[in-house]
Amino acid sequence: MSEKRSAILLISCPDQKGLVSSVTEFIFCHGGNIIDLEQHVDIDESHFFMRIEWDLAEFSIARGEIDAQFRASVGTRLGIQWTLYFSDVVPRMAVYVSRYSHCLYDILSRYQAGDWQVEVPLVISNHPDLRAAAEGLGIDYHVVPTTAQRRPVQEQHQLALLQDYNIDFIVLARYMQVLSEDFIRHYPSQIINIHHSFLPAFPGARPYHSAHKRGVKLIGATSHYATADLDAGPIIEQDVVHVRHTDSVTDLIRKGQDLEKIVLSRAIWRHLQRQVLVFRNRTIVFG
Amino acid sequence: MSEKRSAILLISCPDQKGLVSSVTEFIFCHGGNIIDLEQHVDIDESHFFMRIEWDLAEFSIARGEIDAQFRASVGTRLGIQWTLYFSDVVPRMAVYVSRYSHCLYDILSRYQAGDWQVEVPLVISNHPDLRAAAEGLGIDYHVVPTTAQRRPVQEQHQLALLQDYNIDFIVLARYMQVLSEDFIRHYPSQIINIHHSFLPAFPGARPYHSAHKRGVKLIGATSHYATADLDAGPIIEQDVVHVRHTDSVTDLIRKGQDLEKIVLSRAIWRHLQRQVLVFRNRTIVFG
Amino acid sequence: MSEKRSAILLISCPDQKGLVSSVTEFIFCHGGNIIDLEQHVDIDESHFFMRIEWDLAEFSIARGEIDAQFRASVGTRLGIQWTLYFSDVVPRMAVYVSRYSHCLYDILSRYQAGDWQVEVPLVISNHPDLRAAAEGLGIDYHVVPTTAQRRPVQEQHQLALLQDYNIDFIVLARYMQVLSEDFIRHYPSQIINIHHSFLPAFPGARPYHSAHKRGVKLIGATSHYATADLDAGPIIEQDVVHVRHTDSVTDLIRKGQDLEKIVLSRAIWRHLQRQVLVFRNRTIVFG
Amino acid sequence: MSEKRSAILLISCPDQKGLVSSVTEFIFCHGGNIIDLEQHVDIDESHFFMRIEWDLAEFSIARGEIDAQFRASVGTRLGIQWTLYFSDVVPRMAVYVSRYSHCLYDILSRYQAGDWQVEVPLVISNHPDLRAAAEGLGIDYHVVPTTAQRRPVQEQHQLALLQDYNIDFIVLARYMQVLSEDFIRHYPSQIINIHHSFLPAFPGARPYHSAHKRGVKLIGATSHYATADLDAGPIIEQDVVHVRHTDSVTDLIRKGQDLEKIVLSRAIWRHLQRQVLVFRNRTIVFG
Repeated sequence: MSEKRSAILLISCPDQKGLVSSVTEFIFCHGGNIIDLEQHVDIDESHFFMRIEWDLAEFSIARGEIDAQFRASVGTRLGIQWTLYFSDVVPRMAVYVSRYSHCLYDILSRYQAGDWQVEVPLVISNHPDLRAAAEGLGIDYHVVPTTAQRRPVQEQHQLALLQDYNIDFIVLARYMQVLSEDFIRHYPSQIINIHHSFLPAFPGARPYHSAHKRGVKLIGATSHYATADLDAGPIIEQDVVHVRHTDSVTDLIRKGQDLEKIVLSRAIWRHLQRQVLVFRNRTIVFG
Repeated sequence: MSEKRSAILLISCPDQKGLVSSVTEFIFCHGGNIIDLEQHVDIDESHFFMRIEWDLAEFSIARGEIDAQFRASVGTRLGIQWTLYFSDVVPRMAVYVSRYSHCLYDILSRYQAGDWQVEVPLVISNHPDLRAAAEGLGIDYHVVPTTAQRRPVQEQHQLALLQDYNIDFIVLARYMQVLSEDFIRHYPSQIINIHHSFLPAFPGARPYHSAHKRGVKLIGATSHYATADLDAGPIIEQDVVHVRHTDSVTDLIRKGQDLEKIVLSRAIWRHLQRQVLVFRNRTIVFG
Repeated sequence: MSEKRSAILLISCPDQKGLVSSVTEFIFCHGGNIIDLEQHVDIDESHFFMRIEWDLAEFSIARGEIDAQFRASVGTRLGIQWTLYFSDVVPRMAVYVSRYSHCLYDILSRYQAGDWQVEVPLVISNHPDLRAAAEGLGIDYHVVPTTAQRRPVQEQHQLALLQDYNIDFIVLARYMQVLSEDFIRHYPSQIINIHHSFLPAFPGARPYHSAHKRGVKLIGATSHYATADLDAGPIIEQDVVHVRHTDSVTDLIRKGQDLEKIVLSRAIWRHLQRQVLVFRNRTIVFG
Repeated sequence: MSEKRSAILLISCPDQKGLVSSVTEFIFCHGGNIIDLEQHVDIDESHFFMRIEWDLAEFSIARGEIDAQFRASVGTRLGIQWTLYFSDVVPRMAVYVSRYSHCLYDILSRYQAGDWQVEVPLVISNHPDLRAAAEGLGIDYHVVPTTAQRRPVQEQHQLALLQDYNIDFIVLARYMQVLSEDFIRHYPSQIINIHHSFLPAFPGARPYHSAHKRGVKLIGATSHYATADLDAGPIIEQDVVHVRHTDSVTDLIRKGQDLEKIVLSRAIWRHLQRQVLVFRNRTIVFG
């Protein structure tokens, strides 16, 4: 329905006076009604961030012209960077999995229920185990084996698949494999990973075992954008759950998997809502 | 230091196009640099809320003139309601207590450490027990007994004290006494209460006993503005802590008191930051 | 493997001296190794509860004889009530659903992954919507319509199904229908419900709407055993998540559904582990 | 009152059959009524832990004889290690502080309210700042300067003070100074520290600055027993609070200090209740 169509501007630029005024005036002058506006100034870095969403119903600029007109009247003058989204353009997401099913099942159950505005045409895995779950929902499932020596070729294969399917962003749903810096460069701030610890504690392999050994009283999960540095990318979402001395490693894994799927799904939700901006390896998460 | 002085506008009005644009242009045109801006639209009620804070260092309007000029150039034209605050004007707070010390001690320890920008010239109580704690910090402590029959006279006495001390807002730090509708009318959205349950569960007396009897697995605390309806005012802050079958009523009280003091202090902090707006018995809490 | 087989005793009785000593001596004398022991005394009610689990590997009493021998040497003498379980006896669970899929999908994903030691032969619903999800895993799906007038007949139909499938306990996975007192009496402390609020706040219909209207700062979910009083049965698990003024009713529902499925699954887990005892409408949850 | 007097045994030993049976029989045979019993078996390490508390009202062994009789009839035979406590023996605690007041104020407010069964005769600090708070409650306040070169002499001075005051255990309430391995050896598992991060993340100095730089979405506090390795001792309590991109380092410090004082006080409470056992750098925390 026309009244549901909205435009979203994500803006990131050095701070200066008049930014909010200029942007909101542009929208107001062309008949746009602001649905949501959030701005943030990083005082230390003197950097400005804004997410602004407005109703297109009575907006006087044709959607194909908005970007150019914004550039002409605001963008160039203020020297800012922005990205324009439309709420009715449905992004396309690929899911990477290994053998753990809980995150994939959680994503698929939301997909099936229609909770998210997203297309999921493709699942990539290094194992055939979870094929039925994907194909049962009409999602193509490609097995691409991973071996340290042949990784460049295998990643080329993956990149070709991602391109074939017009993938906008990738979710690593406990994929358990390291992606190369080169691969990641193709999808900057577009690869969402879930790590099974409250980072920066316990990066790398077997965090539940390490957590048990250290005797922590809470375990966590962290969803972040993948970067060249393993488990060091900008954090989108984190949460924890309390544990006790009675919890074995098996208990930590069981409790932790509930966290993993919830934290990952929250991060995907925010990414889909265009609520996340990245700056100097940190995120601004509006909403 | 001059660069620390800022002005804050809290705005609440029926939604209309151009609100953000008009307000931010007013600030921009007079040389103000926006430090923080948050707005919210209650879609169902079509109502608009905004908190905007700007640096006064290079602002061209004298602070004594800001309110009038804002009225002239924005307020009247758009028909909005607003309140103007200055960050360097220190509010004056009175604390009401009964015999429980934990909330008062927590407030006083923050006051003594200089954590809050507030003056606390007055503590009112129906018991003399906590006099030493207040007076030790140079705070006057007045005992005003409370009896159902003589409440009107006693409240007149309290109102006179509050006026004498130029009190801006009141904190009921486990005061345990009901205030009359008439009394509350003198301080609309300026009386912060702490109730020892996750409201609306367990309003009224002895909530920990009720929680224990019901066998809940979490207990809570709720800070809200006092209204004529007991424990039914707009909620500012809530939090909970998990409990188990092993917890007796005494354990619930012990765990709950930690919640009470933290939740109350968070609410006071937000009130002091001018982050709270009230609309139809709910709060908008910016920040 | 034989070393995994264990026996579990759940004991509930008026407190008296020597209970732990007598029970542990019985196990020790017959070569049992205690894996886990938890006891609790409700001081106010002077009532004793215990869960004790021991390895059967070197236990000298045949499993078919344990109950009788325990009765002969301990139970009758001390006048206690107990239930004996074996860890390798897999309980049979029926799931009731209406149209909401999130709890069912979550249960089925755990079932499919083999996370729980349980059989799920039967799903009952008043709607056909979720048939595919059940049948895809080989689970029979029966549609039993519900109408206020014909409820007695419909419940007879359900009871017959539950008997046919040898069901041990029932999970109401957002079933949204009221069960009669008579029906519930067939499964005392064996019907696990999930309610979408932090009970006792917001019982009954549309709790997210009520929570939004009241302006609470946290929403919750409660899993409890169904009793004749709607939403008033003994609570097994509860949890909450923080919300803000920016959250619409739709946001509350979205955030709440994540809670619902996690809280329900935790309650099912505890029920399966034989960790829950009910006493005077409250639960003792060991572990 | 005599019915309140209880004895507590904390037991730690290699696992073997018959431990619970032997200990509970000892108590039962001499007329003791068990108030609370918790046991835990570390399966991986095959190690047994128990906390058992019983009423002394009708116990037939004089309290001065209990330890010897337990040794004679149970301890030696089973080769176990234990510590015997009496609930009416009030431990003596020293508090170390530097300049931060929030943890000290929180401890003193509980002390003043009589929430804890503890004596606090002594505060030691490297600064005079907080003298008034201690002395106002009749607690001696000793300033012992700390300098890297003269640490051995200064620690000797401290040890002499601790001995003079018959101190049982020490609380480092944001003391901010490193204690030597030699000093710590005098109080094994008797020095409770609070660290302002969710360890093992952000050990050492300035964790809030590191947390802000890393862009975490939650900050934490950890209370642990001090060991020779800085911030690596056995963890007693941990908790976290969510933060956002809007939180500056100053905000993290403000929010974190609330956590610190609550987490530290919870740890002290558990220590006072004799609920904590240490094994291989981890804690068993009963209750």
